[in-house]
Amino acid sequence: MIKPIIAVLGGTGREGPGLALRWAAAGYEVIIGSRQVEKAERVAVELNAELGMDTITGLQNIAAARAADISVLTVTATAHQSAVESLRDALQGKILIDATARIDYRDPRPPAPPAAAEVAQEILGDGVRVVAAYQNVPAHALRQKVGGAIYADVLVCADDLAAAGQVIRLTEAAGMRACYAGALKNAIIVEGLTAILVSMNKYYKSKTAGIRITGV
Amino acid sequence: MIKPIIAVLGGTGREGPGLALRWAAAGYEVIIGSRQVEKAERVAVELNAELGMDTITGLQNIAAARAADISVLTVTATAHQSAVESLRDALQGKILIDATARIDYRDPRPPAPPAAAEVAQEILGDGVRVVAAYQNVPAHALRQKVGGAIYADVLVCADDLAAAGQVIRLTEAAGMRACYAGALKNAIIVEGLTAILVSMNKYYKSKTAGIRITGV
Repeated sequence: MIKPIIAVLGGTGREGPGLALRWAAAGYEVIIGSRQVEKAERVAVELNAELGMDTITGLQNIAAARAADISVLTVTATAHQSAVESLRDALQGKILIDATARIDYRDPRPPAPPAAAEVAQEILGDGVRVVAAYQNVPAHALRQKVGGAIYADVLVCADDLAAAGQVIRLTEAAGMRACYAGALKNAIIVEGLTAILVSMNKYYKSKTAGIRITGV
Repeated sequence: MIKPIIAVLGGTGREGPGLALRWAAAGYEVIIGSRQVEKAERVAVELNAELGMDTITGLQNIAAARAADISVLTVTATAHQSAVESLRDALQGKILIDATARIDYRDPRPPAPPAAAEVAQEILGDGVRVVAAYQNVPAHALRQKVGGAIYADVLVCADDLAAAGQVIRLTEAAGMRACYAGALKNAIIVEGLTAILVSMNKYYKSKTAGIRITGV
């Protein structure tokens, strides 16, 4: 099977670099996307150096989405809507993985429906298959032992089961267990889980609260 | 420490008996509450027989709440509001653990805010400390090996940290790990998790999907 080219859009933030490192280490061609191409290129150089590889490149977000087979959106909550609007044309016919959790880390509250991924699906239209994932994988854990497994499961929500299946396989390639968690509307719960995990990190003085699924 | 007397209100349904068995097995005095005293008494007799004990009794819900130090509400979603209204006087000065998840098991969707437990707090007023817990512990798992641990964690949401601490200790006494999951408003996420776990049970053909917390 030919490995898809993966773009990590908004990939210079907290969550994106860890995902990019894990896919590159697993042999995927990865493009870091950013609004500023210089920033994308700089982070790509840093991540390649960390891995001793040169398969990560940097492009402006729209060019990255065009060059990739599958894109992951890891922008901040406030940048989400305008980022999705700018990517509308570049993503047609492809899968977008939306990792956005609209949480204020200083005052975490459950976000109001619809889920960020549902907003993205509405903006992008039926030509793009939106899958919600990675909203509550601790960024801190992603950067630890990049070649190894991490003890937080990924909940994958999508209305398109085939697209969910592709994302589950990509997630496993990155060293994480992934479970299909139902329709895209369930992504509001996964976003909200981030609020709970932030509360737990504060209460238990941790940085890596995550969840695992049992009994399936 | 003197063990509190626990009432399991609406305790003749799917979730209540498993909790009652676990607390009785751990040495707590447990009262099964039901709208009909005969039904409560019958279930109490059955559960005592299962344990070879006689510490579980049955009472009408309001009498059970009056006789107990701490009550757990395990009614169905449709019965939730009227049950809470009927218990207003009996619960004053006490802790109510609300286990309600307003999910249609045939078509699970994320419930709309406010959380059932927030509705209960609003009805009961400041004289009752409402704690949300047990909304997504698989009823099936509670009945398995009653003396042993089960591999699903309990998320405990409450505005009152001391009340949350009491519920965490009671939960551990019942063989489950419990984590403080933030303010009562976070209970809407835990309720919603039930929708995700129901989706998973369908997709993975399981009955016992649950979650564990990692990294704390």
